Amino acid sequence: MAEEQKTWTGKAIVARDTLADNGWKMEEVTTREIQEDELLVELVASGICHTDIMCGSGSGNSDLFYYPRVLGHEGSGYVKAVGSKVQIAKPGDAVLLSFDWCGRCESCKSGLPSLCYESMPLNFGNKAAFVSADTKDTSEIAGKFFGQSSFAHYSVAKQNSVVNVTSLIRSKEELQTFAPLGCGFQTGAGTVVNVAKATPNDSVVVLGLGGVGLSAIMAAKISGCRTIIGVDRVDSRMETAKSLGATHVIDTSKLPDGKTVVKAVQELCEDAGPAITIDTTGVPVLVKAAIEMTRKGGKIIQVGSTPPDFQVEIPVFPFMNSGKAFMGAIEGNSVSSEFIPKMIGWYREGRFPFDKLVKLMPAENFEKGVHEMHTGETVKPIITWS
Amino acid sequence: MAEEQKTWTGKAIVARDTLADNGWKMEEVTTREIQEDELLVELVASGICHTDIMCGSGSGNSDLFYYPRVLGHEGSGYVKAVGSKVQIAKPGDAVLLSFDWCGRCESCKSGLPSLCYESMPLNFGNKAAFVSADTKDTSEIAGKFFGQSSFAHYSVAKQNSVVNVTSLIRSKEELQTFAPLGCGFQTGAGTVVNVAKATPNDSVVVLGLGGVGLSAIMAAKISGCRTIIGVDRVDSRMETAKSLGATHVIDTSKLPDGKTVVKAVQELCEDAGPAITIDTTGVPVLVKAAIEMTRKGGKIIQVGSTPPDFQVEIPVFPFMNSGKAFMGAIEGNSVSSEFIPKMIGWYREGRFPFDKLVKLMPAENFEKGVHEMHTGETVKPIITWS
Repeated sequence: MAEEQKTWTGKAIVARDTLADNGWKMEEVTTREIQEDELLVELVASGICHTDIMCGSGSGNSDLFYYPRVLGHEGSGYVKAVGSKVQIAKPGDAVLLSFDWCGRCESCKSGLPSLCYESMPLNFGNKAAFVSADTKDTSEIAGKFFGQSSFAHYSVAKQNSVVNVTSLIRSKEELQTFAPLGCGFQTGAGTVVNVAKATPNDSVVVLGLGGVGLSAIMAAKISGCRTIIGVDRVDSRMETAKSLGATHVIDTSKLPDGKTVVKAVQELCEDAGPAITIDTTGVPVLVKAAIEMTRKGGKIIQVGSTPPDFQVEIPVFPFMNSGKAFMGAIEGNSVSSEFIPKMIGWYREGRFPFDKLVKLMPAENFEKGVHEMHTGETVKPIITWS
Repeated sequence: MAEEQKTWTGKAIVARDTLADNGWKMEEVTTREIQEDELLVELVASGICHTDIMCGSGSGNSDLFYYPRVLGHEGSGYVKAVGSKVQIAKPGDAVLLSFDWCGRCESCKSGLPSLCYESMPLNFGNKAAFVSADTKDTSEIAGKFFGQSSFAHYSVAKQNSVVNVTSLIRSKEELQTFAPLGCGFQTGAGTVVNVAKATPNDSVVVLGLGGVGLSAIMAAKISGCRTIIGVDRVDSRMETAKSLGATHVIDTSKLPDGKTVVKAVQELCEDAGPAITIDTTGVPVLVKAAIEMTRKGGKIIQVGSTPPDFQVEIPVFPFMNSGKAFMGAIEGNSVSSEFIPKMIGWYREGRFPFDKLVKLMPAENFEKGVHEMHTGETVKPIITWS
């Protein structure tokens, strides 16, 4: 009887220091043995997200910033092995990887796993999952970023991060293209559908047209919103937004003298402003503008990460009188195992063409992917592992 | 043929200066002729609300503070005459008076008249409606406070402020008791039902147990909320809260050393905090505590007026990660013509016993009503005009 394989060796992008200091290197790593609630996944692809870059760009050593580690949290692949308590999938199954959650806290119990009270340690904590394949180096390398660390050919994934899509996927190529569904696209679309609960009566403004923003645009179109405004300053993204359903776009770099983005948006919304404003940028001046531009009774949903110390000052008396709501949301408050199949359903119907936003490239070219995301040339780079 | 009566003369509480300076006096006034969208109402009663006192306590002359004027905005009475375009009621009908709204702006068109873009001038603006009955004094006295100025035996009311309850009211005494439905009780109950959309899964905390807070407690009970916590520091109000459905009360004046109200509330809510927090106090330290105590994914609804210049600082990154929503609401975002009959229905079923909260007294005793509201002896004083 053949002995069961316990560890897997393959390439990974190991962040040994910050990206800016050229600290991210392709290396050979070996996974540790999986535990009872873990799976070993052979990744076929991983989206690159700003959160990967952010977490691999901080110097010093803290709960959030530490090295060496393997990042990546928009993975897709096939299961190679499962722990004794894993019920979500079996070897050979196709899976998409999403965020981790505890399943026991008040948020998880009430159907909001993305707001899990253990979210920080589970998704961002320092947990050993690899060692270098160079057996002379026995120091551990952290993994399980978002319960998955998908910047590796073989990785250890937490059961709660795994969505089994075996019955929904037609080919390996599709599985690669679908990799970002578990985070970026879910965040944008979920914000519109689950958080804002947009209806055809609503006008929607999306600030920032990256992967999150453009999936919000698609979801607003699916929701039938009467006015859908995309705000950015990269021409190609605004063109993409229009092709995906934006009824208007505003280029903040080309506003006439004296016209603010607040005024420009409100003019397109009966001078009252949008019912739903989604900020995906985290840029403080735009967060403030988002709150201001929104109509009375409207929702401002913060989705983009601001600088950690940024505080917005809300004048409470006029805010109360405005009837507005300033809301946070994570992963579009989605339950991934429900929302990913929903997005795939929309895709099949031609209503959620997120494949227009992705660009596949071999994992070795990850630096090119990062660069193109920064310049705006590529909305969502996906690195492929096979 | 008898000539139609054009003006009415009766008593009114005229604020000629601030309340603190003894500027509120019972006088004889005469109404001006009604316009096409107005009704002449013979008031039978009016609740007294903190907003009356606030608007009659500011010195100086501004959009909000001006004299002489007739305040009062929780009126009930019988119609004496109607303008040519009035369709809501006819002479003899019983009416409750609520807030004014334009009917044409984006908020009104979308079913949120309490967030009307013309709300400030319509409800708070300086509009002549009376003159002194002393014909030697021809200076005008402002009326139509909230479209009604119910601190008068006879007053000019705007059609949009009027809810016809002829078919719902059984006696004049009932009409008097029901006077505050159009503002304070609607605000508390509407916040729970229309804004928070509370469900049996929700835990609710109400900060401040005045008329608004106690009606929120009743509505939380009607909504079947699993935990209902009232926070105040007046013993009698906490007892009342318990009798109306609060499962717990917290006396902030009696917290043990080192225990904050945040901690005390969270302990009663699985250490996570309430799903819905309603601040009716406007006290800055409680507004901040409300945001902090609320569980991830929960709603903080601001209902109490803070000092006009108070700003709350929200650290955006952690707030986003908490998935909380900080919301303003006015009049519980109610459509009075729909929500008042709903509250009366609950009352008939014994589920909304707001009559426990009121105390009727002749209008001449208005200073006693104000005093008892301030001390907490009476939750909702109602002055009667006949």
